[in-house]
Amino acid sequence: MKRGVLTVLSGFSGSGKGTIIKKLLSVHPDTYALSVSATTRQKRMNEKTGVFEQDGVDYFFLTKEEFEKRIVEDRFIEYATYNENYYGTPKDYVFECLDKGLDVILEIEVQGALQIKEKFPDALLIFMTPPDAETLYQRLIGRGTETEDVVRRRMKTAIFESSLMDRYDYVLVNDTIDECAEKMHQMVTLAHDRAVCSTKLIDEIKKQLNTFSFD
Amino acid sequence: MKRGVLTVLSGFSGSGKGTIIKKLLSVHPDTYALSVSATTRQKRMNEKTGVFEQDGVDYFFLTKEEFEKRIVEDRFIEYATYNENYYGTPKDYVFECLDKGLDVILEIEVQGALQIKEKFPDALLIFMTPPDAETLYQRLIGRGTETEDVVRRRMKTAIFESSLMDRYDYVLVNDTIDECAEKMHQMVTLAHDRAVCSTKLIDEIKKQLNTFSFD
Repeated sequence: MKRGVLTVLSGFSGSGKGTIIKKLLSVHPDTYALSVSATTRQKRMNEKTGVFEQDGVDYFFLTKEEFEKRIVEDRFIEYATYNENYYGTPKDYVFECLDKGLDVILEIEVQGALQIKEKFPDALLIFMTPPDAETLYQRLIGRGTETEDVVRRRMKTAIFESSLMDRYDYVLVNDTIDECAEKMHQMVTLAHDRAVCSTKLIDEIKKQLNTFSFD
Repeated sequence: MKRGVLTVLSGFSGSGKGTIIKKLLSVHPDTYALSVSATTRQKRMNEKTGVFEQDGVDYFFLTKEEFEKRIVEDRFIEYATYNENYYGTPKDYVFECLDKGLDVILEIEVQGALQIKEKFPDALLIFMTPPDAETLYQRLIGRGTETEDVVRRRMKTAIFESSLMDRYDYVLVNDTIDECAEKMHQMVTLAHDRAVCSTKLIDEIKKQLNTFSFD
């Protein structure tokens, strides 16, 4: 069986990452697994937490002490601070899913994404953005859950993030949900045919070619 | 208008590159342009030649002297020797087509392909292969146009080429024509959304984000 693709989705806060991921998981439940991140940030209203990865869990909410203990124990693929909180990707679950052939989606911010690309060159990095910055601002305002200060900070973060967009494999414009989700699905599906994911096939063909003797 | 994608298709002799390209051009005539190579190799029966690029022309057949003159005049994107002949990609036509938004397909061997990737990091490199080496051998034999010596040389060349497959973006298995052509079309279509092809969009968003003032 072919190993799954480690897919990293980043994007401006308000770009609609969560919606697109939910769409992908509901349309292709047997193809994707969602990696659940651990974080030390405060729980938003309506967010669910969990001890093990399972449907409907948004984050593992950890104390700062617990998070730092797990860093020392090397239990994260990557971790980073973002808006003054820790975010990290627990290792075990991701590797298990990839080995089962599932494409694992990690929703992580840019610093963590670039760490992953460095450690795992076969990871697929997708950066999601609204069609323009005004749309982004309106979506953040429209959420209604954020204070003016938080919106301001997120827009500042967006400026930083935009400076690293060109380090991603793809820039995915989220205009309409269905089209965006379908395009992301195509990106991940085709990623299986990248040379970097075809080492088994390449080795097999090399071996076969060498059985022909031409002296 | 978005610039076209410079698409390089390589693959073992007998992998079916010509068939897939013809299919792509016939199904999507307004999307693709085929770059016609110049070569010093002998014309095969039924091959057409031309002075300017036009439908149905297989190669520009040049003498060794004329080819070397054009090398000096810097009129090739890349050139290489393959089976003791020169092959090269004339520059002008390719750039014109890309500027018109057409995706230009270059069918070239591995040395030239890697030259292109170095000079044009936004080029898309696809390596086509039959599902296995036995199929490759049978296709070469089945052609009936090649002497045993030529088949032997092509298989030896295949061994060399297989050592560079991992430098390509994609490995495309040519099992059935329709599926293979469709997959290649997806690869090229999605290539427009690579970050490396999205510099205009990225710059636009950066500029917009900076118009929001948050001090």
